[in-house]
Amino acid sequence: MGVRYSVGVDFGTLSGRAVLVDVGCGDIVATAEMPYPHAVMDERLPDGTRLGHDWALQHPRDYLDVLTATVPQTLRKAGVDASDVIGMAIDFTACTMLPVDGAGEPLAFDVRHCANPHSWVKLWKHHAAQDEANRLNEVASRRGEPFLARYGGKVSSEWMFPKVMQVLDEAPEIYAAAASFMEATDWVTMWLTGVARRNSCTAGYKALWSKREGYPSKAFFKELDPRLENVVAEKFGHGVDPIGSKAGDLRPDAAEALGLKPGTAVGVANVDAHVAVPAVGITEPGKMLMIMGTSTCHMVLGHEERIVPGMCGVVEDGIIPGLMGFEAGQSCVGDHFDWFVRSLVPSEYKEEAERKGIGLHALLRGKAERLRPGESGLLALDWWNGNRSVLVDADLTGMILGMTLATKPEEIYRALIEATAYGTNMIIETFEGCGVPIREIYACGGIAEKDAMMMQIYADVTGRSIALSASPQTVALGAAMFGAVAAGSAKGGYDDIFEAARRMPKVKEERYRPIPENAARYARLYSEYKTLHDYFGRGGNDVMKRLKALKAEIGGCRDQHSP
Amino acid sequence: MGVRYSVGVDFGTLSGRAVLVDVGCGDIVATAEMPYPHAVMDERLPDGTRLGHDWALQHPRDYLDVLTATVPQTLRKAGVDASDVIGMAIDFTACTMLPVDGAGEPLAFDVRHCANPHSWVKLWKHHAAQDEANRLNEVASRRGEPFLARYGGKVSSEWMFPKVMQVLDEAPEIYAAAASFMEATDWVTMWLTGVARRNSCTAGYKALWSKREGYPSKAFFKELDPRLENVVAEKFGHGVDPIGSKAGDLRPDAAEALGLKPGTAVGVANVDAHVAVPAVGITEPGKMLMIMGTSTCHMVLGHEERIVPGMCGVVEDGIIPGLMGFEAGQSCVGDHFDWFVRSLVPSEYKEEAERKGIGLHALLRGKAERLRPGESGLLALDWWNGNRSVLVDADLTGMILGMTLATKPEEIYRALIEATAYGTNMIIETFEGCGVPIREIYACGGIAEKDAMMMQIYADVTGRSIALSASPQTVALGAAMFGAVAAGSAKGGYDDIFEAARRMPKVKEERYRPIPENAARYARLYSEYKTLHDYFGRGGNDVMKRLKALKAEIGGCRDQHSP
Repeated sequence: MGVRYSVGVDFGTLSGRAVLVDVGCGDIVATAEMPYPHAVMDERLPDGTRLGHDWALQHPRDYLDVLTATVPQTLRKAGVDASDVIGMAIDFTACTMLPVDGAGEPLAFDVRHCANPHSWVKLWKHHAAQDEANRLNEVASRRGEPFLARYGGKVSSEWMFPKVMQVLDEAPEIYAAAASFMEATDWVTMWLTGVARRNSCTAGYKALWSKREGYPSKAFFKELDPRLENVVAEKFGHGVDPIGSKAGDLRPDAAEALGLKPGTAVGVANVDAHVAVPAVGITEPGKMLMIMGTSTCHMVLGHEERIVPGMCGVVEDGIIPGLMGFEAGQSCVGDHFDWFVRSLVPSEYKEEAERKGIGLHALLRGKAERLRPGESGLLALDWWNGNRSVLVDADLTGMILGMTLATKPEEIYRALIEATAYGTNMIIETFEGCGVPIREIYACGGIAEKDAMMMQIYADVTGRSIALSASPQTVALGAAMFGAVAAGSAKGGYDDIFEAARRMPKVKEERYRPIPENAARYARLYSEYKTLHDYFGRGGNDVMKRLKALKAEIGGCRDQHSP
Repeated sequence: MGVRYSVGVDFGTLSGRAVLVDVGCGDIVATAEMPYPHAVMDERLPDGTRLGHDWALQHPRDYLDVLTATVPQTLRKAGVDASDVIGMAIDFTACTMLPVDGAGEPLAFDVRHCANPHSWVKLWKHHAAQDEANRLNEVASRRGEPFLARYGGKVSSEWMFPKVMQVLDEAPEIYAAAASFMEATDWVTMWLTGVARRNSCTAGYKALWSKREGYPSKAFFKELDPRLENVVAEKFGHGVDPIGSKAGDLRPDAAEALGLKPGTAVGVANVDAHVAVPAVGITEPGKMLMIMGTSTCHMVLGHEERIVPGMCGVVEDGIIPGLMGFEAGQSCVGDHFDWFVRSLVPSEYKEEAERKGIGLHALLRGKAERLRPGESGLLALDWWNGNRSVLVDADLTGMILGMTLATKPEEIYRALIEATAYGTNMIIETFEGCGVPIREIYACGGIAEKDAMMMQIYADVTGRSIALSASPQTVALGAAMFGAVAAGSAKGGYDDIFEAARRMPKVKEERYRPIPENAARYARLYSEYKTLHDYFGRGGNDVMKRLKALKAEIGGCRDQHSP
């Protein structure tokens, strides 16, 4: 048998990208990317209908356009014959959801509904369902619903049921017309195969489903809203398949549009962050993956379900079949440094960067990496966008102390980076304290690749070695790996993700390892961070919440993300 | 009797300025200024001798050059005849001190000593006597010396005895050669009159003297250093005159050099901050003067001596004869905003300011004054340069919290201003809690005049009205007032400073008054400030000190002021 290929397609927030991967060695032989024609719709629909504050929609057709444009490109670029492509799979942002009719058509494609914003895809960062999330949390907490503990005690407004509730509250006719609410990742996969299924990752992390207990009870939904009593039976009718299983075969129409062969195996749909775990070779407990960008996701596997305070979720089969997948997160990482560079870097620095022909981040990094741990005297809490894990509190805000009249911008820049490392270490400590061991760290994402100083700080602060993904497209590679698993070994793929993860991923040979002298200093600084973390974050002094409340009274909405 | 005039000369850090004042109405009819030819000597002596780290010296001849250049200029400019000038007085920075011989000549003018840096004038901000100050504080505290309480529990390295101790430690031959250590303000006044006296203001605030108890005991000085046992008798031999008394008559040589008449009355020497109090019309308790610049001095009068925690000093006759003068301070006010503008204002702001033809402070102020109290959600502690009152702790550092990804530079700028207002309110509350009432506030100094937003914030935060000096030269006017008092009513002046203060000062008609809605919001914010002030400042969490200690271990000396 010659070289066999698998296709992975990664659907991001603003664009989608396809990779064509050599199934044997995991090399990416071609990549093609396309921005969504309608990008993120946060002001108006294509027909001009205005959207509310905090809305974020997408156009379902854009996903199909990305598929049919990019997949054929990869084959052409690499000169690969479609008959050598044995499988494919996709990954997506989540929870990115849409209502569909009985035939699986988006209601947004129906002239009777398309003028109603609720018929469109609600993107993960659609933040207009906060009231519904509050109601859901309040009812679940009052009833002592056991599922809450699996989500760190709080359901986010970004997730499936708050979004469904918003549809019901504001557009009951759309709710009634919907035969199903689907994750976009499942909907696109259904378009590929013609078979409607849900994947265990989004069902678990975003729709409160668990392998052992299923969805929340009818009694719970009834108390939320009598009309929701049968929401699961009525709107979530398809079965849930574990990650790593086959969704179906590529149907002829889709195959033609993609330039692939009908019958090509299609893997169950996945999520961008989660699919990256096997893509760096992790298929067992003890290794944590950090996907680092504007925010950071932390993924770790376990054999047992553990209730870890403040994690984003624990889902059986959520990342790797047969294992518990734990997810935690920091809501402000790259965003944090961008804020600083955008808001607080003086003009001489800008001029110096221009003179040197480098960016401001690179200039600050160059100055900051000459500082030794503790030399600036600064310490910050990384809460500019609230705290996702382990405090799960969006009302916390940033703090920095230690400034003198000699404090320099690069010292603050480094203190902000260190603060995110302390936040990660707090997550690690919390996992370990609950019986989820973390012995090494893996990292992928733009920041991890660009910022060696930051990765060294993370190694020093956590006292753990850090390996970096060697793939330029870790996430899409992960999707392609699941495509190879869907095909199976008989067709030249793999019989399970464990085998695929032994063969296809690559990590860089150089690891970041803790430097003992730095680690000792950071241990002292981290202990100061922890004291302040608990003082401001666990009720010692709720000043941040009171300041936010005062701000809200005044009607200031300056801290809302502008769309 | 026609119009009578008095001359005031204000000796600042970098220059001196003389004013000629109409004694009847207090109008300044002429001003002349001159920079010191040798400015501040912080690297080398005029002969090239290198100075140590943290040294700051001046040349005594510069003071005489200022006198003889500027005083005649004011008369010429105004066309006033010397016979119409009835009195004069000076004010100075303090503690600015020098060793003199038995004839009152500075040892710096003596060829045997002038190559030794210790023979020169030590300027107030000579900071090289910290070890001596530490020793003094340690011994005084161990012995339970009662004087310590009058200075908030701590003697500064800037004051007289630490500086004298440094001379003894490092240049015992200069100590031996000195017939006297004098405040520069007393030395210049002695040069004018030929009579050696000390003034009660610097003796009290800087040399640990009190009207009732005199200087510290021989036993105390002996324990500091056996050679110091008789320091008072040997080196502080002249009597102490209360503020507001006459120092003597202008001696003929000095009169000729100044273009004045011999016998013109000369007032006892004074200090710049203290002389400003009667110059805004304050001669009774209940009114606090803020002299606002890079740092702020707070002055208030009382009938009784009260021990107020963390004040800089309480001195009978220290400001106004017959009253207790209380002084407190904030070490970082204008410096605070300058740090921000220098370090953290982005280039777009700089471009906008250039486009509008205004400075960065004005641009930020324009943006910040559109914010309502509490709207930014920010709160800061004003400790970028430590805390002078009421915590008296140089090891405290800055803190700011409440930042989000939408926080803007002007919001931080305003938060820093608000923090200094909270610091002032903490001083007011501490005074009032100790029985020193403060009903209204007066302000003078560059910042007070330039920044209406800041003054309104201070009125709102303190809940008190603020009056501004209407004189462009408040401090020099104060000196001239004491000149008029030295002359007395028989010569067309005044018999006491109370009468002079009823006639000569002017304050602006418009006062800043608290806006009730703002005051209510600031009361809530101030209560948050207070909680954090006590948490970080009174032992709740000594993280700032531990971070400074770690920084010192590493050998970073980045927070030292560069000379």
